Amino acid sequence: MIIDCHGHYTTAPKALEGWRARQVQALEARLAPPAPTDLSITDDELRESLENAQLRLQRERGTDLTIFSPRAMAMAHHIGTARTSEAWTRLCNDMIHRVCTLYPRSFAPVCQLPQSPGVPPANCIPELERCVRERGFIGCNLNPDPSGGYWKDPPLTDRWWYPLYEKMVELDVPAMVHVSASCNPCFHATGAHYINGDTTAFMQFLTSDLFRDFPTLKFIIPHGGGAVPYHWGRYRGIAQDMKRPPLGELLLKNVFFDTCVYHQPGIDLLLKVIPVENILFASEMVGAVRGIDPQNGFHFDDTKRYIDAAPGLTAQDRFQIYEGNARRVFSRLKLPA
Amino acid sequence: MIIDCHGHYTTAPKALEGWRARQVQALEARLAPPAPTDLSITDDELRESLENAQLRLQRERGTDLTIFSPRAMAMAHHIGTARTSEAWTRLCNDMIHRVCTLYPRSFAPVCQLPQSPGVPPANCIPELERCVRERGFIGCNLNPDPSGGYWKDPPLTDRWWYPLYEKMVELDVPAMVHVSASCNPCFHATGAHYINGDTTAFMQFLTSDLFRDFPTLKFIIPHGGGAVPYHWGRYRGIAQDMKRPPLGELLLKNVFFDTCVYHQPGIDLLLKVIPVENILFASEMVGAVRGIDPQNGFHFDDTKRYIDAAPGLTAQDRFQIYEGNARRVFSRLKLPA
Repeated sequence: MIIDCHGHYTTAPKALEGWRARQVQALEARLAPPAPTDLSITDDELRESLENAQLRLQRERGTDLTIFSPRAMAMAHHIGTARTSEAWTRLCNDMIHRVCTLYPRSFAPVCQLPQSPGVPPANCIPELERCVRERGFIGCNLNPDPSGGYWKDPPLTDRWWYPLYEKMVELDVPAMVHVSASCNPCFHATGAHYINGDTTAFMQFLTSDLFRDFPTLKFIIPHGGGAVPYHWGRYRGIAQDMKRPPLGELLLKNVFFDTCVYHQPGIDLLLKVIPVENILFASEMVGAVRGIDPQNGFHFDDTKRYIDAAPGLTAQDRFQIYEGNARRVFSRLKLPA
Repeated sequence: MIIDCHGHYTTAPKALEGWRARQVQALEARLAPPAPTDLSITDDELRESLENAQLRLQRERGTDLTIFSPRAMAMAHHIGTARTSEAWTRLCNDMIHRVCTLYPRSFAPVCQLPQSPGVPPANCIPELERCVRERGFIGCNLNPDPSGGYWKDPPLTDRWWYPLYEKMVELDVPAMVHVSASCNPCFHATGAHYINGDTTAFMQFLTSDLFRDFPTLKFIIPHGGGAVPYHWGRYRGIAQDMKRPPLGELLLKNVFFDTCVYHQPGIDLLLKVIPVENILFASEMVGAVRGIDPQNGFHFDDTKRYIDAAPGLTAQDRFQIYEGNARRVFSRLKLPA
């Protein structure tokens, strides 16, 4: 079985985006926001949005299940207040729930959180509980920068975040650390802000004792871990200079990397420096890069090809990367018989 | 000949730091700042600061010349006003000039710039001219984020920066894009802010027509290009999705990467994906990582070992990386006979 641990619902019916646009307009005009019931999307529309996109690509590429969450770019936690974020988040999560109910063998649900800049992350607990306990979600996406490129909230290792972590541990759900859109003109979203977010989060973990406080807390750092594997020697060296424990001991029981790296040499490096048990297969399709690589004629984000072609992996290694690690990290994942 | 294109004067005599501390204290107390003449460092003190540090390491590692600039972390452009920055910058640059005058075969000078958040970069022109025309400097370090981790100034591709670029082109000097300290608690300086700065700058270049406006402008992106080579497929794909020209055409005539990547797999990847003519040897010693890698018994930042051990390089490739490219990019570099 091949589990893709990182897919966003980037192809949702336009009506969802339309609702969000009305919500933002109402906010700007200081009018009453649209009601959740103002959004009407049929099951057929959901099916149509997936059949020729994620489901077709799953079939073509030979992957089985996508761990599926709302579009990361659209989380846009910086817009409006915590109430704005909450209303939008519930709507997006409910859409994921419907998709996973329609296609329980193809998608497993991960939720976005109603984060808002300057608002304690404890405010995300009710939505996390609703999603996990009532609707079978198996994880969440956590935005380390709800301000959208200005990095105004405390680092992920600050006690500011601890109430949410306590709930994650209690529910036994991991978080993928994933920024959203950038409203800072310095940062291109998918080309800079995403990758910087990954690198930043890793370095926050490296300098803290977060995992002494939460030995079972689990994070996936997407996009192949940002810059981290490429600079693995730098990170080993910085940790050593700071008299921190070796990285394996310090954080590799808690921090995992996905395989959203869109060329063979990048994947080869990832597999060479990061232990196999810390790598989860992912493609982020349909996502940041949609074209075909003229160098080989395949989609840049068809990451399964790179892993299949990577030298030196045993059958057991591949099983871990494609399935075993995802089942361990997303321990609530249960597939229908 | 082996040219290390990226070294900072991290071992300068303590008196320099002391002067800066008095400058900052005066600023906070709203008193008159110290005068440049309040700093007294003898030539012997300069020699001593280098003999057992950069010069010893050059000899031990078999490198010849370091392109040498003030300590990046200490530029701290976010402190005080443009006048604060200017006074500190002149002092730091003069120190580099003295070092290069004492050791003309071992060091070639690169200046910091008196940037200040919110102040047009045109204000850096007089100091750049002074350094290049009067004191033989061959390049400058350009901070893409003078705010120190809040990214408040426009992207490097904004016209805001153009007057400085016009002067760089006129003087034929390249800039290394190098952030300074981070005062944002989210960003560890050498582990996150540095690497993020590199990735961010590259993506700014990718999305702009800067090099159509300045066909001879040259930038070095340090730390192996941040996350860029590891995600080279992502960047090729994003450029293609945006209907930009291929990266080679779009920016590789103008953008170069150094080799400050502190493990063999990282260097191997860099050499595999980035054309040889765009790679300049560098170690950043004495810098971000000072320890010895327990995996091989050598210093993490002894990057020459990785390049010497990299497979598939021809003698001509090595010449380019170690010397030829640096001479081309730093075209004002002239060594004493």
